[in-house]
Amino acid sequence: MSNPEKEFKALLKSHATTVERTLETFLADTTFEGEIARPQRLMQAMSHAALDGGKRLRPFLVMESAAIFGISPQQAAIAGSALECIHCYSLVHDDLPAMDDDDLRRGKPTTHKAYDEATAILAGDALLTLAFDILSREETHSAPQTRIELVKLYAQTAGLGGMVGGQMLDLEAEKQPVISEREILTLQAMKTGALIRCACEAGAILGNASHEDRQRLHEFGKIIGQAFQLADDILDVTSDAETMGKQVAKDANKGKGTLISLYGLGVSQQRAKDLLAQAIETLEPFREKADILIEAARFTIERKN
Amino acid sequence: MSNPEKEFKALLKSHATTVERTLETFLADTTFEGEIARPQRLMQAMSHAALDGGKRLRPFLVMESAAIFGISPQQAAIAGSALECIHCYSLVHDDLPAMDDDDLRRGKPTTHKAYDEATAILAGDALLTLAFDILSREETHSAPQTRIELVKLYAQTAGLGGMVGGQMLDLEAEKQPVISEREILTLQAMKTGALIRCACEAGAILGNASHEDRQRLHEFGKIIGQAFQLADDILDVTSDAETMGKQVAKDANKGKGTLISLYGLGVSQQRAKDLLAQAIETLEPFREKADILIEAARFTIERKN
Repeated sequence: MSNPEKEFKALLKSHATTVERTLETFLADTTFEGEIARPQRLMQAMSHAALDGGKRLRPFLVMESAAIFGISPQQAAIAGSALECIHCYSLVHDDLPAMDDDDLRRGKPTTHKAYDEATAILAGDALLTLAFDILSREETHSAPQTRIELVKLYAQTAGLGGMVGGQMLDLEAEKQPVISEREILTLQAMKTGALIRCACEAGAILGNASHEDRQRLHEFGKIIGQAFQLADDILDVTSDAETMGKQVAKDANKGKGTLISLYGLGVSQQRAKDLLAQAIETLEPFREKADILIEAARFTIERKN
Repeated sequence: MSNPEKEFKALLKSHATTVERTLETFLADTTFEGEIARPQRLMQAMSHAALDGGKRLRPFLVMESAAIFGISPQQAAIAGSALECIHCYSLVHDDLPAMDDDDLRRGKPTTHKAYDEATAILAGDALLTLAFDILSREETHSAPQTRIELVKLYAQTAGLGGMVGGQMLDLEAEKQPVISEREILTLQAMKTGALIRCACEAGAILGNASHEDRQRLHEFGKIIGQAFQLADDILDVTSDAETMGKQVAKDANKGKGTLISLYGLGVSQQRAKDLLAQAIETLEPFREKADILIEAARFTIERKN
């Protein structure tokens, strides 16, 4: 492993392919029982929302966190895909007219634009439900104790006290734009941070990690979750729609408080670098086993889209 | 147990109270970690959607199915409440303007009317997620294997191949009103039948039932799920809004195909009675242990609202 950056880039690509195949399998699953049907239009909308999308950063973090404990990427990709289902459902619902009202996502029409609002709501609901269906299956992990721990982690980070709660705070922040640094950090830790932290911790659970190691990955996930959001906010003011594949400067246009509006761009960029240093420090006990995760942290913070 | 009907009515009331208290506890849960907040408005919307509502038939069926195997109502009420969260989330999303566009539910304004659409979407998402959070907790059942089996059952009956898929078929049926008996039965088995069947089977899982006994409760749940929907369709044409606490005759007004439009009212009422006889037969091996469940079947079919 002489060039971690190069290896990271190759793995980011190959893990994304593994996740894509895994999601395709779950979304093409035609097992049925008795009088149960699988509505075609709903499956197509779920596939539109979940397939051919993004960098698959969250599954990647599950897979590379699990790799520290010797779990194969193929194995970890299953729990990773379940997390991606939650991420994708949240994008579908966030894009709805009653929420952020976006027409474009990853350069494609959003699900309610490609289908209709009702179908998009149901596709989101079905993807969230599918995530727990996947976690419950033996193929995710042979031990029921491990699977139920994953269910608990995913449910707690995705719900009221995590991602959904963060989206609610975000909607409220639009109506009351002047919010404090602490409020912005809380909102971001919940809305985007929760799933990224969840990804790293899920890897530790899959790997049957010690309490200390799990805590390290929890902490690492928390830090890069913050960094990810900060990088997003920086890109929101420095990038353009073509590079991002979605609308930019929309937070500023809506008068939403971000850390950049508090700190300014220069301080924010320095802060992102400090977070990277913290992230690297957190993983030190894993030595070279964490090289790829450290590159992931670097990528998260320095990415261009 | 000389008067099962009387005992059933008392239990229906007392179980509903137990479920109400259990849901209140979960919805007032203020445990939080680090920078995690629980947005007040979202919690209120979730409470609006989940508390003070309905007969709690699904949790009742979980509790009485589990009782056959000696599980206490208090114990089974936890898994029952998780199922009720799924039921309530589905009502919130079904009532949205993009879906059935209803203003009234259980005699109260629907969640998007009492709050707003975005909050209602998120409250639904958070209730669905909370269901799996509850199932993952040790208090639901001490054995991880049992908890993960519940997660699998709930996820599979609530998702694409169950409730959500059924709602999708229902939306499609509105656009193409002439659908066959088989299509109506499939739609109903998924949209409303799935959760009722799930309730009965969940009781068997909680009670660590044999494969045969679980199959019996699965079958019983399937039959009363059908009967429940048939009774609903009968009430839709014979009852009034005041008794029902919601709009009636809306299926007929929308030109939706129901079994009544195929069979006529008289044949439908006879069919409901036949289903009751089948339900009773299915539970025969449990003898008097199933007396309350049989009363529940009778009530489901003969109810006035």
